[in-house]
Formats: sequence, C-alpha cells, structure tokens
Amino acid sequence: MEILSRNGSDVTSDVPQRTGNNLDPWYANYAERASGLAASEVRALFAVASRPEVVSLAGGMPFVSALPQELIVSSMERVMRTQGPVALQYGSGQGIPQLREHILDVMALEGIRGSVDNVVTATGSQQALDLVAKLFIDPGDVILAESPSYVGALGVFRSYQASVVHVAMDDDGLIPEALRQTIAHLRGQGRRIKFLYTIPNFHNPAGVTLSASRRPEILEICRENEILVLEDNPYGLLHFDEPAPNALRSLDEDHVIYLGSFSKTLAPGFRVGWALAPHAIREKLILAAESAILSPSSFSQLVVSEYLSTTDWRAQIDTFRGVYRERKDAMIEALGEYLPQLRWTNPNGGFYVWVTMPDVLDSKQMLPRAVKELVAYTPGTAFFADGRGRHAMRLSFCYPTPDAIRVGIRRLATVVNGELDLLDTFAGTGPLQLPPSADFDSAPPSDLK
Amino acid sequence: MEILSRNGSDVTSDVPQRTGNNLDPWYANYAERASGLAASEVRALFAVASRPEVVSLAGGMPFVSALPQELIVSSMERVMRTQGPVALQYGSGQGIPQLREHILDVMALEGIRGSVDNVVTATGSQQALDLVAKLFIDPGDVILAESPSYVGALGVFRSYQASVVHVAMDDDGLIPEALRQTIAHLRGQGRRIKFLYTIPNFHNPAGVTLSASRRPEILEICRENEILVLEDNPYGLLHFDEPAPNALRSLDEDHVIYLGSFSKTLAPGFRVGWALAPHAIREKLILAAESAILSPSSFSQLVVSEYLSTTDWRAQIDTFRGVYRERKDAMIEALGEYLPQLRWTNPNGGFYVWVTMPDVLDSKQMLPRAVKELVAYTPGTAFFADGRGRHAMRLSFCYPTPDAIRVGIRRLATVVNGELDLLDTFAGTGPLQLPPSADFDSAPPSDLK
Repeated sequence: MEILSRNGSDVTSDVPQRTGNNLDPWYANYAERASGLAASEVRALFAVASRPEVVSLAGGMPFVSALPQELIVSSMERVMRTQGPVALQYGSGQGIPQLREHILDVMALEGIRGSVDNVVTATGSQQALDLVAKLFIDPGDVILAESPSYVGALGVFRSYQASVVHVAMDDDGLIPEALRQTIAHLRGQGRRIKFLYTIPNFHNPAGVTLSASRRPEILEICRENEILVLEDNPYGLLHFDEPAPNALRSLDEDHVIYLGSFSKTLAPGFRVGWALAPHAIREKLILAAESAILSPSSFSQLVVSEYLSTTDWRAQIDTFRGVYRERKDAMIEALGEYLPQLRWTNPNGGFYVWVTMPDVLDSKQMLPRAVKELVAYTPGTAFFADGRGRHAMRLSFCYPTPDAIRVGIRRLATVVNGELDLLDTFAGTGPLQLPPSADFDSAPPSDLK
Repeated sequence: MEILSRNGSDVTSDVPQRTGNNLDPWYANYAERASGLAASEVRALFAVASRPEVVSLAGGMPFVSALPQELIVSSMERVMRTQGPVALQYGSGQGIPQLREHILDVMALEGIRGSVDNVVTATGSQQALDLVAKLFIDPGDVILAESPSYVGALGVFRSYQASVVHVAMDDDGLIPEALRQTIAHLRGQGRRIKFLYTIPNFHNPAGVTLSASRRPEILEICRENEILVLEDNPYGLLHFDEPAPNALRSLDEDHVIYLGSFSKTLAPGFRVGWALAPHAIREKLILAAESAILSPSSFSQLVVSEYLSTTDWRAQIDTFRGVYRERKDAMIEALGEYLPQLRWTNPNGGFYVWVTMPDVLDSKQMLPRAVKELVAYTPGTAFFADGRGRHAMRLSFCYPTPDAIRVGIRRLATVVNGELDLLDTFAGTGPLQLPPSADFDSAPPSDLK
C-alpha cells in the first residue's frame, strides 16, 4: 500500500508510519487501546437500513411511543417548579438521592434488597458497564461472557484491551459445567480472569433466560474461584408470562455488581441507568464516574424520579409487556410460517430472537441482499469476540409493528430461500445440516482450541 | 499495618495482599489504572463546607438562578410536542444534528469556523476530555498542562496513567519559552508527549488569559513538535470587559481539539458539552463515545437545541456576565480591603481568582480552620500533579452573592491573620516573603528538577 509520509516523500510500506499517514496525521499518537475502537463492519449498511421502506429487525430501540408523553411533560414541569435550581445544577457523582431510593423499589421487584448508599446512577447502564471495565480491566485480562454476548459489552471490553472468552449456553442460559471447565482451562494457562459478564434474563441476543436452578450454581462457581459477577439486567421486568427468576444479586450481595436501566422500562432518551455494587467497589465507581463526567444529568435524573413518584410506573411496564409480547408472538408465528427450515429461540421476555441457519449460509454475507429486499437484521458475528456466529442472526421485535414484523420475516424468507436455492443449484451439496435446537455455540472458542 | 487475609488468619504486612483485604475483598482485582482514582484529600471537608452557614468560595457551581426557568419549561414542552419520540429515544453517538448546528453558531463568537460533521456532543465537556484522554494516553505518556491546571483534567489524565508535566504561566498565560524548554527537556529524556492541555481563557484556577500575541506562538511550537493541542474553553464567552482573543482553534484547524460546554453559558444540569476535532480524530471520538454511553441524552440535547433556537441566548450570556462581573468586583475589592498582604490575579472573565500567600502559610493545613470560621476555598495543591501549590488557593466568585463574598473574604482574613500572628509569636521568623505578583509556579516541577 502506498502511504504519503508527512514530509511529502512517497514511501511504500505495509507498516503504518510512526509519524502518521495522509489520512490521519495523528495515527502514530493514539493509545494502544484505540486500536480496539473499530467501526462495526455493518455500520454503513445499517445507515441504509434506517430508511423508512426497510423493515429493520436489527436495532434494539424500545417502542417509546407506548409511553404517554404528557406524563413526561407534567413530571418535568413539576421538577422545574419545585426544584428548578437543583435540576439545572451539577449534582453528586453518585446521583440524586431521591432517584436512588426509587431505584431500590424497582430492584425489589426482582428480589433485590440493597442500600441507597450502594447505588450509583449513570448515563445509561452502558456507562456503568464502561466504568466497571475501566476499574477492573488491565490489558490481556480475561472477561468471561455468554456465547453469544451483547455487542456493546464486547466493544467496551475490547476498548480496555480485555480478552473475551465465551462460555457455552443453552436454552436454560449459561451452562454451569461449561463455566467450570472454562475457568479451569484458563487457570491452567495462568490467565487472569477479572469477571463473568452475564445477562441472565431475556438475553441479548440469545433470547434465553438463566433457569432458577442454575443461578445459585453459577454464583457458587464464581465464589469458589473468586471471580466477580457483572449482572446486566435491562430487560428483567419485561417478561411475557412467568416473571424471570430473582436476580443473581438477590442471592449474593458480595460478589455481584448489578446493572439496571430505565431505557427499556421508561425511555432511553434520558440516559439514566445504574449500578448496585459491593460497598468498596461502589466507592471506586463513584470516583471513576466523577472523573468521566463530573456528575450525571440532574435534569434527567429528577424528571425520571418525579415520573416514578407520581405515576403508576408498574402499570406502564405492563403496557410495554403487552406491546412486546404481541410483537414477539407475531415474529415467532411468522418464522414458523415462512422459515420453518430454520431454528430459533422463543423468548419469554425482552426484545430478541436468535435464529440459527444451515451451515451453508453466512448471515453477514447475506445482509446486503436482505437490505436490497428491504429487511435488516444483525449478523451473529457481532455477538462474538472470536469470529463465530456466521450462521446465526439476531432479530429484534421491539420496534416494528406486528404487521411490519410479518412483512419483514416474509422478506427474510425470500432472501434465505433464494440463497439456499442458489447453493442447491450450483453447488449440488447434500442435505442441509441443522442443529436440533437453536445453536449458540457452533464451534469451540478460539481461546480454548 | 494489620491486614486480615481472606482465609481469616492475621498477617502483618505493609504490602497489600494479593487476595484482598478485610476492607475490600476485590483489592487485588482492580486494574492498575484504578490506583489513580483517589478521593480528594479535602473531600470530607467539602461535605462540611456545603452547610448553608459556610460561605463556600471553593466550588465552581454556576449561578443558575440567573436563568429564567420558564425558558427551559417552554423549550421542553415544545420539544415533547413536536419531537417527543425522538427526545425519548436513543440518538446518534455523535449527537443530534440540529444541536451541532447551533454549536457552530456559539463557536463562531470566538472566531471558530468548523463543520457540523466534526462536532461531537458529549455528557458535558468533561466527557469529551475523558474520551480524548482514553483515545490518546498510554501509561507513562506525558501530558503538558499549565501550572496550575484544572483539577478535573488532572484526575482524568491520572486515571489513564499519564504523567502530567506543568509548564509555567504568568499574567499573560502560558509562557512560550517555558513550553519550548519543557518540550526540549522531555524530548531529551526520550519521553513521549501526547498533547498540550490548555485553558486559554479566564483560566481555571489561575484566572488569567493567554494573550493574543502568544497564541500563534504556542501553536507554532506545538506544530513544530507534532504535539496536539487540547483547548478547553468553558468560560470563553463569560468576559467582563474586552472579549477574550479568538480561540486557538480559530488559528489552526488541524492541530487543535477544541472542547466547549453549555454548563456555564446555560446550565450544567443538562450535561451537554462538545468537542470539535480534526476529522480523523473525530471519527475515533465518536466510536469511543458510543462505547462509553451508546449516545448522549436526546432529551437534554433537544431541550438545549430548542432553547438556542427560540430564545435570545446571547442576551442571557450578557446577563450571566453582569452577575459574575459584579461578584468578581466584590471579591477583588474585599481582598484589597481585608487581605492586602496577599497577592491575587484579577480575571477579566470566568469564575476564579488565584491567591498567593506568604511561604510560611500552607493552604491545605489552613483549610480546617477556615471551615471552622465558616469559609471554604480550594487549596492550591489540588491544581498541581506534583505537590506544588501549598502557598496558593483558588477562590471562586461564581456562586455566592456579592455580600456573601465580602463576608467570606473577611472570615478568610481572620484565619490568615490568625495564622500569621501565631507564626509571628511562636516562630519569631523574619519578614514575610511574598513574590512581586501572583505566583503560579513557586518551585520547579519535580519532573524537571
């Protein structure tokens, strides 16, 4: 490749020049960790997919139109009338005390008892995740995560130069025996494991829930091995039938950092989430938060707090549940009708269905054709740190209407069947290979090979 | 010191135990960078100082009561009426386009011409500062900063394990020759300098402004040495008489990352600030922002944007200027009346006065006595990365009324004079040593000794 060096002479080299290149003169100045900040390969395609004629089953946007806006307007008016100067001012790095009280009420619905003193509010739970990662991850440290795992968490861990090792899951969530073996294997290699990152409820992207019986077992394994658990639970209250089992944090106060969010139960536009952490860690989290943003928005926090004080927010969550359940049913029904040859999870809550295709199909390669057919999804590779997921995709049912979902799945079927026909015609392959159920883990993680 | 190890046996050791201690079982698990996250030594004292009977000249809280709250309420109502679902939803990691357009108008007042494409909004300019640091700082890298510098920036740099080297300033701001010498000295040692962090206007904490004639010279020195400039300008529009000279960014698009904020010209409670960066860097900044928080608050951004669209925000800034100028005058007058034996800067804008005391006084040691006398300030040591600043303090005039400022300075005089009397009586020292003008730089930086 040809690089124009800064002094103007032409040099030919595959090695980036220390003094920069013609595209970015600061190339040589970035921190090592900046190399982990890569734009998603499908980002450009998603820009196209956001056009209104495309049915996007790709994003994770909550359906905020189900929230009566007058509730927000009146909450905000009351905040400004009664606490205007507080709302407009800097606040504490830990967050507004009255909101942290309400957060305890929210967490109590999942069996969590905590102290307001150990709650730290943040600019969305994503920020809490980022701060925990900043606090714990040295380059090369291992983070354990489900297989697959949340793309935004993988990005955070990469940005602190962690090595993510996936642990197998099945329809009951993370598999305890797989966790035990993975830890033993890594310990045998002398690797340093910093924490287990897990989404126990209505998993993003897998759509499954960690069973009640596995929860104490997972905690026991982590305790034995002195591994911290980072429990990320944005969807826990959005169940369709049975509530999810109580949170991991409800079973262990000392080894679990719990992350919660108002993005799915109220609205993401406020960017209000939180961490509940063991006391010593919470102290450091506050310092990290102050360093990163001084304090979270008082304005947003007080509006959310006022909303929680003055409205029947539990009824509003019921409304959201009804909306999402109807959409999930539409998606599962349409998959059965149009794509019976695939496998998928059938979530009992949350936003996502994980679809497994025959091995001959590649979801990333197929995406441009899908967008051409006016439907978008997220390729499975986005949810693995090690290149797996090519034969899987995440479908989101949270944002499009049930009718749009049916149209989207029908379009997806056109693409999938077109691909299969093409392969059948030109390659003369044998019968399609499909796992007996949704496949989260189609090849051993590269770290464990 | 006695540490109870995890297995319960008593061990006596000065070395932290690998497996944690009885105060924090996760002690051994934190990342190296977490050791840089230390609580301020005067934090506990500031909690006391926030009691209403104490006149606090310590904090940097803007006087938000000078902002008519109905402007915020009506902006917010219009936003929810016309763009409710956008305000409640996730947005782009770069920030809402219409707000970024307004930000160009704001920056134009300081001579900056930029593209909306190169503006990245953030959760306060503190977050933009954090993201730039994350992007550029490897452990051990050198950051150049004024002497003294903003305490919140020093905290960020420490959290990424940078080594801050201070560069001398005088009443005209950063001294070009000192910058040149410091760079040469560090280069001679083989140190890697990542950027110059500077607050050219109404400096926090020094209260001085970089003169117009020095600006191109500072930029030229940085260009010659391929050092990026990080220009932090939260106070630039809050001048009292003459406007500040045009921003450094107005003179050089390619070597300056500019940080701006609505915290002082509108209100900090929204947590809306921004960076204007060279194009290649701005791309990475967006990725870092998405990793840290997914997107800044749409709700906050739209309310600020609507406020800028529909009100005479320039007139509101004039109102703030009048408020702060009156308070600054009260402080300077009271210092002249009650503490003529000290030296201080006389800022032409912003929030802060830097006060230099005789060498025999120590501002950190004196603080508990000041709080007992019901006045608080920030000790000078907070603004140095190398232990200097013991004989200096930062006084803020932004928040208390002029009357409260006069009371506060009178109380401070009681403390200072009491200390001096005590020293005089018991130590029998010679005449007081005071520099001829405010002293920013009372000893050579330890890095350069």
